[in-house]
Amino acid sequence: MQHNHTIAAVATGEGGAISVIRVSGPEAIPICDKLFLGVNGRELHTQEGYTLLYGTIEPVEGEVVDDVLVSIFRCPFSFTGEDMVEISCHGSTYIKQELMRLLNEAGAKPAGPGEFTLRAFLNGKMDLAQAEAVADLIASDSRGAHDLAMNQMRGGYSDEFRTLRGQLLDLAALLELELDFSEEDVEFADRLKIGELMDQLSARIGRLKESYAWGNVIKNGIPVAIVGSPNVGKSTLLNALLKEDKAMVSDIPGTTRDVIEDVINIRGVQFRFIDTAGIRYTDDTLEAMGIERTRKRMTTASVILFVAEATETVQEIDSKLKSIDWQPRQHTILLLNKADKSPGSTEALKKALEETTGLPVIAISARTGENLEELTAYLYTLAGSAPEGADVIVTNARHFEALSEAYRAIEQAKTALENQLSGDLLAEDIRHVLHHVGTITGDAPTTEDVLGAIFSRFCIGK
Amino acid sequence: MQHNHTIAAVATGEGGAISVIRVSGPEAIPICDKLFLGVNGRELHTQEGYTLLYGTIEPVEGEVVDDVLVSIFRCPFSFTGEDMVEISCHGSTYIKQELMRLLNEAGAKPAGPGEFTLRAFLNGKMDLAQAEAVADLIASDSRGAHDLAMNQMRGGYSDEFRTLRGQLLDLAALLELELDFSEEDVEFADRLKIGELMDQLSARIGRLKESYAWGNVIKNGIPVAIVGSPNVGKSTLLNALLKEDKAMVSDIPGTTRDVIEDVINIRGVQFRFIDTAGIRYTDDTLEAMGIERTRKRMTTASVILFVAEATETVQEIDSKLKSIDWQPRQHTILLLNKADKSPGSTEALKKALEETTGLPVIAISARTGENLEELTAYLYTLAGSAPEGADVIVTNARHFEALSEAYRAIEQAKTALENQLSGDLLAEDIRHVLHHVGTITGDAPTTEDVLGAIFSRFCIGK
Repeated sequence: MQHNHTIAAVATGEGGAISVIRVSGPEAIPICDKLFLGVNGRELHTQEGYTLLYGTIEPVEGEVVDDVLVSIFRCPFSFTGEDMVEISCHGSTYIKQELMRLLNEAGAKPAGPGEFTLRAFLNGKMDLAQAEAVADLIASDSRGAHDLAMNQMRGGYSDEFRTLRGQLLDLAALLELELDFSEEDVEFADRLKIGELMDQLSARIGRLKESYAWGNVIKNGIPVAIVGSPNVGKSTLLNALLKEDKAMVSDIPGTTRDVIEDVINIRGVQFRFIDTAGIRYTDDTLEAMGIERTRKRMTTASVILFVAEATETVQEIDSKLKSIDWQPRQHTILLLNKADKSPGSTEALKKALEETTGLPVIAISARTGENLEELTAYLYTLAGSAPEGADVIVTNARHFEALSEAYRAIEQAKTALENQLSGDLLAEDIRHVLHHVGTITGDAPTTEDVLGAIFSRFCIGK
Repeated sequence: MQHNHTIAAVATGEGGAISVIRVSGPEAIPICDKLFLGVNGRELHTQEGYTLLYGTIEPVEGEVVDDVLVSIFRCPFSFTGEDMVEISCHGSTYIKQELMRLLNEAGAKPAGPGEFTLRAFLNGKMDLAQAEAVADLIASDSRGAHDLAMNQMRGGYSDEFRTLRGQLLDLAALLELELDFSEEDVEFADRLKIGELMDQLSARIGRLKESYAWGNVIKNGIPVAIVGSPNVGKSTLLNALLKEDKAMVSDIPGTTRDVIEDVINIRGVQFRFIDTAGIRYTDDTLEAMGIERTRKRMTTASVILFVAEATETVQEIDSKLKSIDWQPRQHTILLLNKADKSPGSTEALKKALEETTGLPVIAISARTGENLEELTAYLYTLAGSAPEGADVIVTNARHFEALSEAYRAIEQAKTALENQLSGDLLAEDIRHVLHHVGTITGDAPTTEDVLGAIFSRFCIGK
């Protein structure tokens, strides 16, 4: 992976008053000097790191592209560990494009997704788990997701895995010792100690692996689909749920425009509503394609809120329910909407439906807000809860995979120990555990493919 | 207009790896010091202006909101002329929102649109025309619009009006002189000189006023609607026009996502295509509302491309043309599409339609690209051209209004002079001219209402 050329990218979002363009690499400062004209003739290469200069981007004298503020960072005291320049310019589409064109012409290549963070990792500024947390931090839109990403980025998360790795290395050393002296019949005494150590490590890896269920909920939220015939009140329900949540959202100007619609936050857990407009229970093939798309999106939901009307019969509702096919892993809640319109008969209908369908049934009124609290409380229980006594929560699918592999290997080692298999087989298993735990922080060798997959998920400019 | 409190706003756009939050005002540095924990315990208030510090936003020890880079600027050496702090943080929705909340809590008020630039103007960092150019510069998405805004922001534009104002003041002095000595019969000799001066000034103001037609085209582009029955090839035409232009658009990653779709650039002039999908020539009232909305959007177009098929008859096309109502100020071009399908008869149809409708008719093929160059050349002629010998181009509607008022007043003064009216009436007219020209740069007193109207068009954070 060659990274001795200089890269540049727009690091800020679309629109806005200010944009920042980042340049990193051995030629970052001379490249920017070709374009920058500092006030009082100041040049970038004569400046120390952590200097701020005001001037113009003026590749040809008199042809000012923009008035800019330039920050200079010198290797290794920068985000990437290389020489870096950050150009703060006006947020105009034309200026950003022209600046990128000029930087390109002057010798900087456009950066790929996550290329700045990749360089930070390769230059030893952070380990792999920390680098991955940078993308998570940028994507975080709730306090829970932010706190997990921040702990991971600042190294608290990696510390846990380093400690674990240390203990695994101790175990491996014990096994090596046993192998060396296996002729001398000392193994039985040590096997007991090894077994205890393995139990502890297996429990620890298991806890970390299981924390992913909660970590994934905190990081990605829970996808929910509201499903039902037209006019049963799906949109009214969504609006009522959103409205309840909206009161808790900050109203500070300049931040609200970023808030994603159709997400409700129940005690820190985000429920993301999937648009399922257009689901119909009809044999009409005319709209089949549109409905097919909706069905596909529905399969990505973890929770399905199936909305029926409290005025319908058990048979009607049951047959509609049977007409949609869901996955076994999807939690389905049956909602009897417009319960305020037939208060007398709703309770009986609810009981009958619970019996017939085996699903949890809640009678609500999206219009009056009746029982919406019961619904949100029920949704919250589906999120699970934070694992007890776990300081570190795994949020990353790659880490979960690595932990699953490590867990399989340590369980195998335990069985080998129980079956009195020889020490070298045990040592082989423990090496596997070590390898998988090591890939999380990048302490074990990582292939270019893995790095490519990790950083391609990043945004450009980071 | 009170501006001694401290303001804060997110200055960068949505998304992106980095966000920048700006804080300006007398308390900017102490407010940020409450939240910032610098590496090695460094505090902001001990630092000089143009300093860059690395550290954390950590209002409560151990609760890190983000790792940040902070730039410090000291009054008057900042954009606003006040103490300023720029916090460069990760571009997460949560972090931006939390930082704004913390700054608010620490005493900074959320900034209104353009409030930073308003302060720069009020603190004498720039005149009013320069302040207005900041918003134009940020909005610029073509080289032409950029160059005009940049010249205006850097003061070249204001120089023109200062020179003009100087000449008007000379004229006013001459008139005062005449008033003082009016008893002494010196006026006739001076009247000739005054007449010459007025002619020169009137011509100059007239030229500036007229430059607005071109300035407006460069700044805002020309809105174009493609209109016609379904399936005549409207989308194919738009795609063909866009595709021709796309080749000229830079392909540098990170910039293209900002490029606005459906804009074609013909020799520096932007033609902005208005979506008119759904226009039908039918009496069916079912879709009336949708069509009504399209019709409304159509009225905002300066140019209408009416697409018909070369296989239709003169009567069919003419009756469709008559069924849509356009404004007299709209240029309409009749396009005969699919000309490649009936090459023999198209020329005769074109001639007949030119005669019947009085409109320019171009036979094209959106599919093969036939005659598209003729169409773009014709569109370009509709844009007009840069006024000859004009260094300064007016792009601002407020400036155009002021120049129109100034022109009226100077023409009135000329008539007064011709009619041998007394010097004090002439002086009154010239005072009007001076006032209107002065409002452009803010040299004449500006009301809060006018300032409010100017800066409310800005984005937040600038």
